[in-house]
Amino acid sequence: MIVVRFTGQQLRMLKIVPPTISMAELRTPKGTLDYSPSATCKLNHTIKCVTGIFEKHGGQPITTPTFELREILLNKYGEESKLIYNLEDQGGDECSLRYDLTVPFARYITTNRIKKLRRYQIGNVFRRDNPSFKTGRLREFIQADFDICGSGIPSLQDAEVLAMISEILYVLSPDKQFKIRINNRKIITGILRRCGVPTDLHATICSTIDKADKRSWAEIKQEMKAKGLGTIQIDELVDRINQTGNNTQQIEFIKKDSENDEEYLEAANEIDELVKLAEIFGAKNIVIDLSLARGLDYYTGMILEASYEGAGVGSVIGGGRYDRLAGSLGGEELPCVGFSVGISRIQGLVQFEMKKRGVFVGSVGELYLVERIELLKELWGAEIRAETFSGTRVNYGDQIKSAKKGGFEYGLFIGERELQTRSVFIIDLATGERREASRDNFINELGFKPIN
Amino acid sequence: MIVVRFTGQQLRMLKIVPPTISMAELRTPKGTLDYSPSATCKLNHTIKCVTGIFEKHGGQPITTPTFELREILLNKYGEESKLIYNLEDQGGDECSLRYDLTVPFARYITTNRIKKLRRYQIGNVFRRDNPSFKTGRLREFIQADFDICGSGIPSLQDAEVLAMISEILYVLSPDKQFKIRINNRKIITGILRRCGVPTDLHATICSTIDKADKRSWAEIKQEMKAKGLGTIQIDELVDRINQTGNNTQQIEFIKKDSENDEEYLEAANEIDELVKLAEIFGAKNIVIDLSLARGLDYYTGMILEASYEGAGVGSVIGGGRYDRLAGSLGGEELPCVGFSVGISRIQGLVQFEMKKRGVFVGSVGELYLVERIELLKELWGAEIRAETFSGTRVNYGDQIKSAKKGGFEYGLFIGERELQTRSVFIIDLATGERREASRDNFINELGFKPIN
Repeated sequence: MIVVRFTGQQLRMLKIVPPTISMAELRTPKGTLDYSPSATCKLNHTIKCVTGIFEKHGGQPITTPTFELREILLNKYGEESKLIYNLEDQGGDECSLRYDLTVPFARYITTNRIKKLRRYQIGNVFRRDNPSFKTGRLREFIQADFDICGSGIPSLQDAEVLAMISEILYVLSPDKQFKIRINNRKIITGILRRCGVPTDLHATICSTIDKADKRSWAEIKQEMKAKGLGTIQIDELVDRINQTGNNTQQIEFIKKDSENDEEYLEAANEIDELVKLAEIFGAKNIVIDLSLARGLDYYTGMILEASYEGAGVGSVIGGGRYDRLAGSLGGEELPCVGFSVGISRIQGLVQFEMKKRGVFVGSVGELYLVERIELLKELWGAEIRAETFSGTRVNYGDQIKSAKKGGFEYGLFIGERELQTRSVFIIDLATGERREASRDNFINELGFKPIN
Repeated sequence: MIVVRFTGQQLRMLKIVPPTISMAELRTPKGTLDYSPSATCKLNHTIKCVTGIFEKHGGQPITTPTFELREILLNKYGEESKLIYNLEDQGGDECSLRYDLTVPFARYITTNRIKKLRRYQIGNVFRRDNPSFKTGRLREFIQADFDICGSGIPSLQDAEVLAMISEILYVLSPDKQFKIRINNRKIITGILRRCGVPTDLHATICSTIDKADKRSWAEIKQEMKAKGLGTIQIDELVDRINQTGNNTQQIEFIKKDSENDEEYLEAANEIDELVKLAEIFGAKNIVIDLSLARGLDYYTGMILEASYEGAGVGSVIGGGRYDRLAGSLGGEELPCVGFSVGISRIQGLVQFEMKKRGVFVGSVGELYLVERIELLKELWGAEIRAETFSGTRVNYGDQIKSAKKGGFEYGLFIGERELQTRSVFIIDLATGERREASRDNFINELGFKPIN
C-alpha cells in the first residue's frame, strides 16, 4: 500500500476531510501539552508524593472552579495581570481562568468566613506567558498549593512551610541538590526606604527586581531608571540586594542596615527567628537572598523560591506570607502563609519508573472467548489488572506483543490441553519463564497482586 | 460587637473596600461550585474507586489541555454546540474550553497516530447550560472517561464496557438500584428510515428524541412537526421507539421491523449478541430502550445511559461507540467505544464516610515549642499525619477543640511531668480515653498508622 501524505490545504481542496479541519491543525493550543500514559503516571506519582506530605502536615483538600469572576482576579498580580486568560463574553458573568490557586483560596476563605484552615489544592492554572517547553514555562500548568491560614506565631508557621518544601524537594528527586532562597517583603521595602524610593514606586520596583534571574543587572538598572530612580539611588539599592554572605552575615547586615526603621528592624528579627526555627524543623539549604522579590502584589512577609541546582528550569516552588489578601477582598484580615509546587515544571526532574502490572489473558489454537471472559472475571474479582485480546485472529506472538505493550507483568494462556486438564499456563513477560497452574486455584498459586 | 452588613454598592461608596470588589460579588461564577474539604475527600474517593476499575480493565491514563483549538470542537456536538465556552480573542490561537473528554481523546489518538489504546482520563469539562444544583447539572463538572480504541469484535468490547459500568454503579452506591439503558444508533436510523424520515433530518430528529427524558411526548411530537415530519410519520416513529418489553421481546421486535433493511438488521443482530455477551461478563440490569438517542453527533453503534432508580439526577453515566470520530478529524478511521462517568453529578449518591486520622501534638502549662517540634518530626518521619498549635496561648480545651476540628484521631500532650519522666500522654479524641507512653517509643507503643 502506498500512503500519500497531503497537507491540510490539499486535503481541503480534495474534499477528503471536512473543510473546517486539517491534520496540520490537529495540535494542542500554543503553550499547552498532552501527557501520554507514561507521562501521566509520572504526573500522578508526583502529585501523590506531594499530597502525602501535605496530608502529613494536616492539610485538607479543597476544590474551586477553573474560572473565577474577573473582578476577583484584578489588582492581585502586579505587572503579570496582562497574562490572565479571559473567557469570551457570551452573556452572563464576566470570567477569567484562574491565574494561580492563591487568590481563589482567599476568595474561598472570605466567602465561607473561615478563620483557620490548613488547606491544599492541586489544580491547573493558566497564564498567557511566552511559552518555553525547555524551561518548563507553559500556558496551562499544574500547581499544588499548601497554605496555613489563621493566627499564630508567624515564624513558626513559616518555618514549618520551609520544612515541608525541603522534604518535597528531597522526595521528588533525592539525587539532586536544591536551594530554598528566602527573603521578606518588609526587608525589601525597608531597603527601598533606605534608598529613598518613594512608597508609590515600591510595587513596580519589586516587579523589576523580580526579573533579576531572567535579565542582566545592567537591564535591571536601566528599567529602574526608566521608572524614575536616580543613578546613585539605583547603585545603592542594587548593592544592598546583591549583598552576599551566609545567613548569619546577611542577618547581621540587615540588622545594621535597618537602624531606626522599625518595620525593617522587625523584619530583620523575624527572618533571624525564622532561620533558627527552620533549622529545628529540619529544613535544609535555606539561603537568605536579599534580591528575591516575587512579582505578585499580595505578599506581606516571608517570600521564598526553591530550585534544583543546575536544572535549568528556574524556580520549582514559590510562595510566601500574605496577611492582607483576604482583607483586600472585603473580608476580615486573616494571616496566611503558603507555597505552590510547580508540578508540571518539575516533571523533567522527578525520578520515577513505571511498574509492569497485571495479567494478559490469551488463548492458543482457538478463540475460547467464553473461557477467557471467565478467567478475566476471576482476576477482576480479585482486584487484579487484566485484559484479553478482542480480535478474531488467534496468534500467540501478537498476543505476547500486545501484552508487553499494555504494560502487563504476566501472560495467562489457555488452549485445548489446558481445558482438558483444567489448567492454565503462565508466562513471565520479562523473563519468558513459563509455568503451569491449576485452573481452579491459579490466583492463589501464582500470588498475583491486587491493584492498590 | 455590632456587625452592620453593607451591600457592595454601599461599601464602594463608603470606600471601605477597594472599588473593584465587594463582599456581595465574592462568589463562584454561575453554575460552578467550591468543594469543601469533606466534599473534596468524597470526590477523591469517587475518583479513586472509578480509577481502580479503569486500571483493572487495562486502562492507561492520559492528560489533555483544558482548552482546545476551537475548530476541533466544531460540528461534534449537534445542537449542544451552542453550549461551548469560548476563550476571549487576546491574540494567537482561537480556543474553547473542552466540552467533553471524547473529542480531545480523538484528537490525541489522531495526532499521535495511535492504533490501539485503552485510555482513561479524569478531568473538568465545561458547558454553558442552564445550571441546576438540584439535578446536578453544572457548568463545570468532572467526568471520568474510559475508552477502548482499536479493532476487535465490537460486541466484545461493548460488553466489557457494560460490565465495567455495572461494577462502577454498584461500588459507588451499593444500596441503590441502577439501570443501564442501551440502544444502537443504527437501530434509530433504521427506525427513522422505516418511517420515511429523510437522511438529512436524522441528526436533528435524534437531538429531539434525546430530549424525551426532560420533556413530554406532546412537546417532542410538536418539535418533530416543526422540523418537518408529518403527523402519521411522527406517530409511527414514536410508537416504535416507545416499544416496551423485556430484552428478548425488544430484540424480536426490531429483528422483525428491520426486514429487508440490511444496516438495521445488522444492528438488531449486534444488540442481540451484545446482550448475550454482557451477561457472560456479569453486567447487571441492562435494558434495551429504543427511545434512547444521545444528543451527540459522533456515535455510530451502541449507545448507553445509566442511572440510579429514583435518584432524581438523570443519567450519571453515558457513552457509546464512535467508529468514525478520528476519521472525521482527518486521521484514519479507528473503532472506539467508551463512556463518561459524571463524577460531579454522582456526588449526592456516593456512600462515603471520612475517617479521623493522625495525631495532634499539644502541651500543658507551657509552650514547649522545641519539644513539640521534636515530636512532630518523629511522627512525620513515620509518615503519620501530625500538627500542633501555632499560637502563644496554652489552653488545653482549645487544643482539644482544634484537634477534633482538624479531623485527628489522637491528641498527644506533654507537660512538665512528662518532660521529667520522659513520657507523653495520649488521648483518644473519640472516646476521651487517656493513656501514657514512653517518650522514646510512643510511635511503636501506640501503633499509630502511616498515611497511606
